[in-house]
Amino acid sequence: MDTISKNKKGLSTEPFPNSRKIYVTGRLHNVKVAMREIALHDTRLKFNPSAPVEKNPPVTVYDTSGPYTDPDIEIDVKKGLEKLRKPWIVKREDTEPLDRFNSGYTNQQLDNQALDALRFQHIEKPRRAKAGANVTQMHYAKKGIITPEMEYIAIRENQRIETIREISPQHKGHNFGASTPKGLITPEFVRDEVARGRAVIPCNINHPETEPMIIGRNFLVKINANIGNSAVTSSIEEEVEKAVWACRWGADTIMDLSTGKNIHETREWILRNSPVPIGTVPIYQALEKVDGKAEELTWEIYRDTLIEQAEQGVDYFTIHAGVRLRYIPLTAKRLTGIVSRGGSIMAKWCLAHHQESFLYTHFDEICEIMKAYDVSFSLGDGLRPGSLADANDAAQFAELETLGELTRIAWQHDCQTIIEGPGHIPMHMIRENMDKQLRECGEAPFYTLGPLTTDIAPGYDHITSGIGAAMIGWYGTAMLCYVTPKEHLGLPNKKDVKDGVITYKIAAHAADLAKGHPGAQYRDDALSKARFEFRWEDQFNLSLDPDTAREFHDETLPADGAKVAHFCSMCGPHFCSMKITQDVREYATQNDLSVNEAIDEGMKQKSREFSARGGKVYIDQ
Amino acid sequence: MDTISKNKKGLSTEPFPNSRKIYVTGRLHNVKVAMREIALHDTRLKFNPSAPVEKNPPVTVYDTSGPYTDPDIEIDVKKGLEKLRKPWIVKREDTEPLDRFNSGYTNQQLDNQALDALRFQHIEKPRRAKAGANVTQMHYAKKGIITPEMEYIAIRENQRIETIREISPQHKGHNFGASTPKGLITPEFVRDEVARGRAVIPCNINHPETEPMIIGRNFLVKINANIGNSAVTSSIEEEVEKAVWACRWGADTIMDLSTGKNIHETREWILRNSPVPIGTVPIYQALEKVDGKAEELTWEIYRDTLIEQAEQGVDYFTIHAGVRLRYIPLTAKRLTGIVSRGGSIMAKWCLAHHQESFLYTHFDEICEIMKAYDVSFSLGDGLRPGSLADANDAAQFAELETLGELTRIAWQHDCQTIIEGPGHIPMHMIRENMDKQLRECGEAPFYTLGPLTTDIAPGYDHITSGIGAAMIGWYGTAMLCYVTPKEHLGLPNKKDVKDGVITYKIAAHAADLAKGHPGAQYRDDALSKARFEFRWEDQFNLSLDPDTAREFHDETLPADGAKVAHFCSMCGPHFCSMKITQDVREYATQNDLSVNEAIDEGMKQKSREFSARGGKVYIDQ
Repeated sequence: MDTISKNKKGLSTEPFPNSRKIYVTGRLHNVKVAMREIALHDTRLKFNPSAPVEKNPPVTVYDTSGPYTDPDIEIDVKKGLEKLRKPWIVKREDTEPLDRFNSGYTNQQLDNQALDALRFQHIEKPRRAKAGANVTQMHYAKKGIITPEMEYIAIRENQRIETIREISPQHKGHNFGASTPKGLITPEFVRDEVARGRAVIPCNINHPETEPMIIGRNFLVKINANIGNSAVTSSIEEEVEKAVWACRWGADTIMDLSTGKNIHETREWILRNSPVPIGTVPIYQALEKVDGKAEELTWEIYRDTLIEQAEQGVDYFTIHAGVRLRYIPLTAKRLTGIVSRGGSIMAKWCLAHHQESFLYTHFDEICEIMKAYDVSFSLGDGLRPGSLADANDAAQFAELETLGELTRIAWQHDCQTIIEGPGHIPMHMIRENMDKQLRECGEAPFYTLGPLTTDIAPGYDHITSGIGAAMIGWYGTAMLCYVTPKEHLGLPNKKDVKDGVITYKIAAHAADLAKGHPGAQYRDDALSKARFEFRWEDQFNLSLDPDTAREFHDETLPADGAKVAHFCSMCGPHFCSMKITQDVREYATQNDLSVNEAIDEGMKQKSREFSARGGKVYIDQ
Repeated sequence: MDTISKNKKGLSTEPFPNSRKIYVTGRLHNVKVAMREIALHDTRLKFNPSAPVEKNPPVTVYDTSGPYTDPDIEIDVKKGLEKLRKPWIVKREDTEPLDRFNSGYTNQQLDNQALDALRFQHIEKPRRAKAGANVTQMHYAKKGIITPEMEYIAIRENQRIETIREISPQHKGHNFGASTPKGLITPEFVRDEVARGRAVIPCNINHPETEPMIIGRNFLVKINANIGNSAVTSSIEEEVEKAVWACRWGADTIMDLSTGKNIHETREWILRNSPVPIGTVPIYQALEKVDGKAEELTWEIYRDTLIEQAEQGVDYFTIHAGVRLRYIPLTAKRLTGIVSRGGSIMAKWCLAHHQESFLYTHFDEICEIMKAYDVSFSLGDGLRPGSLADANDAAQFAELETLGELTRIAWQHDCQTIIEGPGHIPMHMIRENMDKQLRECGEAPFYTLGPLTTDIAPGYDHITSGIGAAMIGWYGTAMLCYVTPKEHLGLPNKKDVKDGVITYKIAAHAADLAKGHPGAQYRDDALSKARFEFRWEDQFNLSLDPDTAREFHDETLPADGAKVAHFCSMCGPHFCSMKITQDVREYATQNDLSVNEAIDEGMKQKSREFSARGGKVYIDQ
């Protein structure tokens, strides 16, 4: 599968076939929104040379691949990506660069000369909100401010450049309606959704390299890919490539779930080179700091870890603050207990100390940290079910209710918040999850892992979960956390990551279609038109994975000539339903047939004409 | 993926790991129902050696693999499988062996000595209903007769041998209720469903090698795998292996969609060696007989093809009798016209002759043929949508209404009937298909191709369609026709066939779970229990694809020792949520904690005990 050529640094930077990067400029702010434009071939009917050639306009699609697919941009992982949001952040004048890091751990790492060789060379001093300031997008939104991030997102979500041009006259000031006229996303609509808490824009002020994106159920459904870094190897590019690879195929955000050594240094490299928001689970690193002994965790160690990661630029934190002491016994009779790593760490801590979770008791202090950097909450579902037998049980739903309580607290601080969800859920029990989440958590965006709809297919859990993900996305989940084929079995390799990402792009897109998102179906229609007209190259290039589509086709009909042939590779030149249909269609349309005419006796004459023109479908070959 | 060792004939005959074939005997008839029994290891808690060893009973699962996975049965493709149904058929005394074949084409082929080398050597004379007799299972069912096929199915559907033993006292005579007491399937329930037309048993009297199976929405959801044979190669085993391979991984029926040369001879080999029902689309072969010129098709050629295939033993025929002349213009404005091969052939014929389809006008005569051999109808959806843009349109639904009309005619002849469905349908439009099909077709079983929920992922259409298949299965579709990753692109290879079958087993099982099928969730529970207890081998062996699960695990932790290790391969020995959970659970259960106790102050003392016992989770290693 890994057929993409790489640049000399080992990164997958090749542009997508027959595609170019375009930049759409904003009206309110100085934003340039990156999109991918796929050029299409003309429609030519070989079997009817007199038919006029039809131009097919290019198709513009949402693009998560970042600068890596723009051949005009030089990539240098040692320098990192352009900090496109930095001018916007500075201009707001509510943040300041700090003289030193506030995290003790960070300073200790910086002082360790043994790490110099591993370290990113251009670490900037972190920014932080000025005293008393709140720098979250939700805070701005509630004050009625449309930020550059919001305008960027409005343009990006509309996807189709033609559409954007149509609406651009309205792109000035605050004169937009709060809804989406004609189904279009306006900057004001983005602001309003963020203000209501129905959407979040994960964008730490210390991660200015991000291309702004939004997570909310009135926008395109997003997907997250997890990457886990092992000990840093000799090649930093290998670590960065994991993120580049996932974004290339469509990851909207990436969670760095590293648990090995040097994760602080590796995270820096990833952040400086990532065009998408980065999420983490800070308790993992905190646990490393106490040598894996959960009971030795303290609020102070955890707090320093939050600040460490916030100052590096992590955009959202999974925080399992809903695993309360009182819920732990509810898991005792489960078939598979507690399967969330974060959840089980906190459960162990709570039992060992017989105290309420420090994440719960210190939640207000966590909010103070989050809003000083605009780190979004991803409230973790530490008690999610690990098997169908445990789905929708008392422990799971008790935690969800607490996550609702915490959401309201976070919102009092204007902290952006999403809610994590399961897990292993049979199809008929999925909807209850969505409905309860919306009700308990005030419509905060839901972010689910799958759910897996059966337990019996290890090795294929991208599929068992892709089914559940598509459904819960349709019901209203805003972001889907991918599952790879290696789930439950081992560590994903590059092919697994790609399989997971593509499967989840399918699930997210199927959900967008089912929700009637106005920008969803045009890509399907363009691809189906290409398929029907035997424009093979266009069919490949419009697909989620042009390389695999082309490779599969070539296994059966390898010659280049086959890609312009007027028949499918399945049936051969003599037996193609598409070709026969084209004859039927051409006949019917040329004769302007209606149903009534078709059953009219007069059609018999036309029938004779049709026979006379010959049933041989390959007269031109 | 193709890691199964093959016998010397090139067939995949190895039994599944740690599994044996068992045979459950009937009470009403002399039936022996083949099932697969998976033996499990004991549960041993290494970190608590004083805990008692727990026995895990073997798990019995539905088995489509036929005699090929029974090492006690010698396989010889030249002889074919045992004709297990032949005594039942003979005993009914309503059929007779014919002196010669009724199909002119068959006799012509038999007279062609050039084909002798290709021919199956032990062709038996065909059986046919005696004059005036009707030999369909529906006919027997309506007369109140419980056939051996029906009892076989009742036992098979219950799956769990423990369950079957429990209910066996009631397995005598006709004294069963028409419903399923305690959710169990009784022979009488099978009979009743077949009599109502809500289920079919595809079992041509000339295919006595089949292990009886049922298609109906009150039974386990079934899947079909298509195989397409090219020109016969030097090895007949290669052709048979395609069917054996698909059944091994779970295909409940197989459709032979061959369009090449010698398809008559190849089909004979497949039928004689297939333990599952075989379906075909007779119009494909009829078209070959007129050199691919659709307009030269005649009723006589088609009729002879039906008889030819019925006398060989094909169990169900796809017949596109709903493509009426008047519906063809409804497809003219579609994005992708007519994508069904059978549908487009008939559309072309209708237009060329300006006549109503001969399949429609001769439908009663077709019924006469079907009931003389018990070939089931699979009424084809020749006007199914080939893209989301064409989903649920006038052409599709007009045809569905005609299929309902034809179902009623077929039932007047006591012909068993299923209805084929789409196709390309976005998620929110799937339910309408199911509801309309049940209404129009009197609850005859629905048999759908996917549906694909998006058009933009060629190369991954097993997944785009697996999502739709799971959903429509939940809504009530009885059988799901698989789609392979090569759909739209090329011919599936062995890996593609396996990927398609496993994906569809997932979809079918997810549907069974969502429908609350009483026999569905025990396999999930057994696998999840094994996963939780680190019984890696049991987890692999209970999965749909033990080979892939084991292979994926071994990529990360290859040593045999790792498979008995008390940690997951993802997280390593020091950081495993399952292990932590086991500690929590053990603690909670040993102390008989309830919610109230957990929040009780007295727990503080227990908390100290827990700490004293030590948080080090790997004390035994």
